[in-house]
Amino acid sequence: VSEPTWMRREITEQAATVAATVAHGLGQRDDLRALCRSRRHVLFVARGSSDNAAVYGRYLLEAYAGWQAALAAPSVATHYHAEIDLSDTVVVSVSQSGETEEIVATQAWARAHGAAIIAVTNGATSPLAIQADLVLLTLAGREHAVPATKTYTAQLAAMGVLASALASGGSLEADLGRVPDEIDRLIAASAGVEEAVDVLAAAAEIVVTGRGLVYGTALEVALKLEETCLRPVRGLSYADLRHGPIAIIDADVTAVLVCPPSGPLLAPMTELAADLRGRGATTLAVGGDADMAAACDYLLPGPDLPESVAPLGLIVPAQLVVESLARRLGLDPDAPRGLSKVTATDPEG
Amino acid sequence: VSEPTWMRREITEQAATVAATVAHGLGQRDDLRALCRSRRHVLFVARGSSDNAAVYGRYLLEAYAGWQAALAAPSVATHYHAEIDLSDTVVVSVSQSGETEEIVATQAWARAHGAAIIAVTNGATSPLAIQADLVLLTLAGREHAVPATKTYTAQLAAMGVLASALASGGSLEADLGRVPDEIDRLIAASAGVEEAVDVLAAAAEIVVTGRGLVYGTALEVALKLEETCLRPVRGLSYADLRHGPIAIIDADVTAVLVCPPSGPLLAPMTELAADLRGRGATTLAVGGDADMAAACDYLLPGPDLPESVAPLGLIVPAQLVVESLARRLGLDPDAPRGLSKVTATDPEG
Repeated sequence: VSEPTWMRREITEQAATVAATVAHGLGQRDDLRALCRSRRHVLFVARGSSDNAAVYGRYLLEAYAGWQAALAAPSVATHYHAEIDLSDTVVVSVSQSGETEEIVATQAWARAHGAAIIAVTNGATSPLAIQADLVLLTLAGREHAVPATKTYTAQLAAMGVLASALASGGSLEADLGRVPDEIDRLIAASAGVEEAVDVLAAAAEIVVTGRGLVYGTALEVALKLEETCLRPVRGLSYADLRHGPIAIIDADVTAVLVCPPSGPLLAPMTELAADLRGRGATTLAVGGDADMAAACDYLLPGPDLPESVAPLGLIVPAQLVVESLARRLGLDPDAPRGLSKVTATDPEG
Repeated sequence: VSEPTWMRREITEQAATVAATVAHGLGQRDDLRALCRSRRHVLFVARGSSDNAAVYGRYLLEAYAGWQAALAAPSVATHYHAEIDLSDTVVVSVSQSGETEEIVATQAWARAHGAAIIAVTNGATSPLAIQADLVLLTLAGREHAVPATKTYTAQLAAMGVLASALASGGSLEADLGRVPDEIDRLIAASAGVEEAVDVLAAAAEIVVTGRGLVYGTALEVALKLEETCLRPVRGLSYADLRHGPIAIIDADVTAVLVCPPSGPLLAPMTELAADLRGRGATTLAVGGDADMAAACDYLLPGPDLPESVAPLGLIVPAQLVVESLARRLGLDPDAPRGLSKVTATDPEG
């Protein structure tokens, strides 16, 4: 038996890293509330997997905590040098390393324009952390594999902490406490993983879709599949898929439907699965309920968690599939071709 | 000689419809300013081509007018029924028909939560228009072809009017006045159109990318190519491409680089073109300057306009390519398979 990859080991560390990040973050709730008290908007600054975590943060803040939230367009800061008053805004910068130049520069722009700054990072002494008003550390330890796994779920945990601090009431704190055991249970069971690897290995075209709180998870599944397995994979929102691309769905397409376990978007996702299957696509559900499983050809079971925190568990079986699929394809999941741990969007500025 | 398609005719009407929409909208500038006076944020609500117009609106407002702007996630309203205070926000709903149920419902939610409402629509008596505080009409007349052309550029014109009203100073009004002649010049010249059709007809995989003020144009080019020509086409931001998918760019890929004629993002786009070409991709520049043309294999020349209003001209040669490519492929550009003029994201609610 060969050594497990770093990616595999780091996937299995996630129950611990999520628990640590949640416990640490919840201890900062009063500071978070004080920093945000006089402000009304949250603006996330992120790229890549961190951006997918921010998409979750955006939906969670809007749907759960009642705060307007949006994702920044960094070029507005770094290239257009826009003059925008951010005195009513909390900027949340998300970067594993805390060293991505574009994110650091956008955060500095936001601070200069009046924003309060929260950094979500694994780099305690990084420029992003040092230049923030408050740091939500992701306590993931060093991540050796290039594809983010434990740092990504730790970022999701930080989003949960932030929403829990900004929401008035609700069960988010208790729900976050249920996540680590679910992560361990999903890894131990690894239900549907090998079958999903078979399906994706044989796929000609892959489309990944999701909506609402799990939309960011769908984008992360697409990014991970593409960057680790080097296959073209499209991540599309439910709405973007319906507004055009659905016309070209046929038997060549394998559609991965990332679903919450419950909530108002499960029924529309189940209808979408039936629609895609009717067009000839091979359908793989990630998560969902019994109706969703019945509507799809294949199932990768998800966590038994409330929709609000489901993304922290839902990504885990997909990570297992990606790691295994990469090896099946003769690739090294720890070091995908052409990627490095800190990405420069603009190497030449 | 066969009759021109509706799509072709509507492409040629765009100089007139942009001119009419700008003239009409500029007459409402005082009302726009009064409506927005006590507010600080703009939130766009849109789907499909209208969403691509809103992406332009977002960058224009942020980079040019100094207003924070974002795109709404309609499910936050329609499915999560979130309780968010929008009393500091102007919601701009964008819909050609003004009848798309999801957009109408999201606008109603925004109004109930305190937002001021601007509707950008071609439907003067539509629910979206009737329920708005102010209507920026797109004076495009009836659009017969299913793929939006003249209604899309009229929406861009409305974005220009809005930014011109909210900006303090600047040359946007004068710049908008230069657009109609540039549209007519681009159509008359049709430079590079037939060659671009040849390139795209032979393409195995197509990726369209752009950044900043022309990012929405790149998304619209991708959507138009896909919905009208029924080919899978990926629209990716410059940053999203660099953060993963770039690793799988090879000689099978035709990369369409949508570029501003000038401005801070032209140099990074030119470097990206050289990078993609170095990986073996066939590169087609839409717009850009002489350096960009030199960095790419093929060129579809764009407008001679300032970056701020370039998207109103830049889409036109791409529309000509799409219309011609659809016919080349034996398809009807006026009635693409599986699409209708009003899209229901959630037919069953």
